[in-house]
Amino acid sequence: MSFTSDPLDSLRVTYQLRCAPGEEVRGKATGIALEQTAELPAACLSPELRDRVVGRVETVDPLPDGRWEAVIGYPRAVLDDLPQLLNVLYGNISLKAGIRVASVEWPPSLLAALPGPRFGVDGLRALCGARTQRPLVCAALKPVGLPPAALADLAYRFASAGVDMVKDDHGLADQPSAPFGERVALCQEAVQRANRETGGASRYFPNVTSGFPALPDRVAAARGAGCRGVLVSPLLLGLDAMRWLTATSDLALLAHPTGTGAFFHSEHGIAPEVLLGDLFRMAGADGVIYPNAGGRFPFSEAVCARINARLRGPLGTFKPALPVPGGGIDVARVSYWIDRYGADMMVLIGGSFYLQPDPAAAAAELVATIRRQFGG
Amino acid sequence: MSFTSDPLDSLRVTYQLRCAPGEEVRGKATGIALEQTAELPAACLSPELRDRVVGRVETVDPLPDGRWEAVIGYPRAVLDDLPQLLNVLYGNISLKAGIRVASVEWPPSLLAALPGPRFGVDGLRALCGARTQRPLVCAALKPVGLPPAALADLAYRFASAGVDMVKDDHGLADQPSAPFGERVALCQEAVQRANRETGGASRYFPNVTSGFPALPDRVAAARGAGCRGVLVSPLLLGLDAMRWLTATSDLALLAHPTGTGAFFHSEHGIAPEVLLGDLFRMAGADGVIYPNAGGRFPFSEAVCARINARLRGPLGTFKPALPVPGGGIDVARVSYWIDRYGADMMVLIGGSFYLQPDPAAAAAELVATIRRQFGG
Repeated sequence: MSFTSDPLDSLRVTYQLRCAPGEEVRGKATGIALEQTAELPAACLSPELRDRVVGRVETVDPLPDGRWEAVIGYPRAVLDDLPQLLNVLYGNISLKAGIRVASVEWPPSLLAALPGPRFGVDGLRALCGARTQRPLVCAALKPVGLPPAALADLAYRFASAGVDMVKDDHGLADQPSAPFGERVALCQEAVQRANRETGGASRYFPNVTSGFPALPDRVAAARGAGCRGVLVSPLLLGLDAMRWLTATSDLALLAHPTGTGAFFHSEHGIAPEVLLGDLFRMAGADGVIYPNAGGRFPFSEAVCARINARLRGPLGTFKPALPVPGGGIDVARVSYWIDRYGADMMVLIGGSFYLQPDPAAAAAELVATIRRQFGG
Repeated sequence: MSFTSDPLDSLRVTYQLRCAPGEEVRGKATGIALEQTAELPAACLSPELRDRVVGRVETVDPLPDGRWEAVIGYPRAVLDDLPQLLNVLYGNISLKAGIRVASVEWPPSLLAALPGPRFGVDGLRALCGARTQRPLVCAALKPVGLPPAALADLAYRFASAGVDMVKDDHGLADQPSAPFGERVALCQEAVQRANRETGGASRYFPNVTSGFPALPDRVAAARGAGCRGVLVSPLLLGLDAMRWLTATSDLALLAHPTGTGAFFHSEHGIAPEVLLGDLFRMAGADGVIYPNAGGRFPFSEAVCARINARLRGPLGTFKPALPVPGGGIDVARVSYWIDRYGADMMVLIGGSFYLQPDPAAAAAELVATIRRQFGG
């Protein structure tokens, strides 16, 4: 009888390690493998247990910048649900210095147990009535503090302009200025009214990020109002809440990156393409918003390209998820980003619409430009 | 009619800011105040809306290390539940460089809406049968991979040794090696059996960290088995799940810091005493585990002292929460830490017990030492 895990079904994590003075890289890697599994010194473990549960340091190689790249394979047997996956991936070691998750090979049996996107790129296009493989356009309802009627008026105008998706700002919760139920009912009605007038299929995605039991209540209210998708912030909710939404509703999910930046250090944390790419997609995000290069946030174009690749590339049997660059995209530069990223994406425009004298007119112009290039 | 928020009920956040070359600190602070609320350039906002929803930069002062300290007051009106509180506190700005939340004054009305600890320091002592104001002792069941009977045997031996609390390792989920229901039933029975034999009141805290609907199922199973408290990892679950547990169960909550280290950078993130101290306590943690100085993790003693202060000091009308230093405490050094931190704490000993030939005997010796000094 062998307890050896199937190496083809292990969690293989590539770490970038920076050793402190006097720290030895093999010891650091072995320490990670123990910390994330048995959480005991090796001396406390029988060889059998060590073989069965402790991560295995597969390779350790120097990097040009003085750091090291170590691959550790974790036995499938220590994994379980999404919270425990995060725990093994970057739980206790988050409290140590100089450890960054650079990339991951996910166990096939783990991927098979997770939902992935219900809609994905093609599903979102179909949901929004796009008849060609064109980029989608998303506008945000903001700011917090506006009453429901004012937000609904904005929603109506953006939908009338032909914007594919009108989403709540992620800071719209259930504040007294625009209570969730009233806001969602009015905004959804406004978008549907615009659709009836234009023959279009704009979709309103309200922000349902909230706790328990508010989350299921808000999801039910959104569905009841006729919404076909929602906005969620997985880092505020817990990643598993997004998986739960995928498993228990037929809504499309647009994921927001708020809070995730805590992980995005050059020598600590989790690479953006692993967290926003792989993990968000595995948990069920149909589209993932990220802070685009050249906007208000410091992501480079290379990072954005890697996120796109992890959202759209092969991953288990999952559908591709839609990259949604935002965070300060200038409407005048949209064509540039479409050239760089390809048409399988949705541009999220916020301030750049609102800075125009007529935000909806600016949106209509962008929609027209894209449709001229790509068709309906 | 005035829309001005009550400044006495605002969220006052003290940030430490590092300006990049060419970055001006007033502009950086104003950018934060906008990003976390309206998420629009100031030019898009009416003076009335700016006054009502945008954070107000109250002070900006230089720090000796070249950074700046800025205090921003956020109107109560933009806050809502815990996820939205995290969003305002460190949501989008987590994606920017050089911003750290150093301390927070919480709006009284927000604190009044949150549960805080149900048991707190005195409640946990009473739960574990401590008859004096003495430190408590906690042992961990590990490693993952052991079958339920082996974990239950460890639980029996630690409880027989007089350990106050026997907790699951935070990596024990529902793996096939020790399925949750079977493990909890056997371990709880083992601890109760030991209690009957010793006349003690050791408590077994199983790890219920999991997703939905597993979390409520596991909580119910733990309660059904007779457990009076549970271990939770708020960063894996979402902080609001801990509040929900406090609101919907009568269980004591021991919070684990796994994953929180992503936030603990010297010039980025959230200060450990704010996240592990204030926020975990506000959400309902009765005890908070943190990586003690001198162990496997790089927390300094000063950081640990600040966490202790935020867990035990005045905060709304909340009970004090119990500091639980762990992460590699040497059993031989426990007296030192009690001298430094005071008796209102629980020492969590893992590897240092397991490295002994007889872990339970080592635990019994520690328990005896503490009771000699402090009584029952």
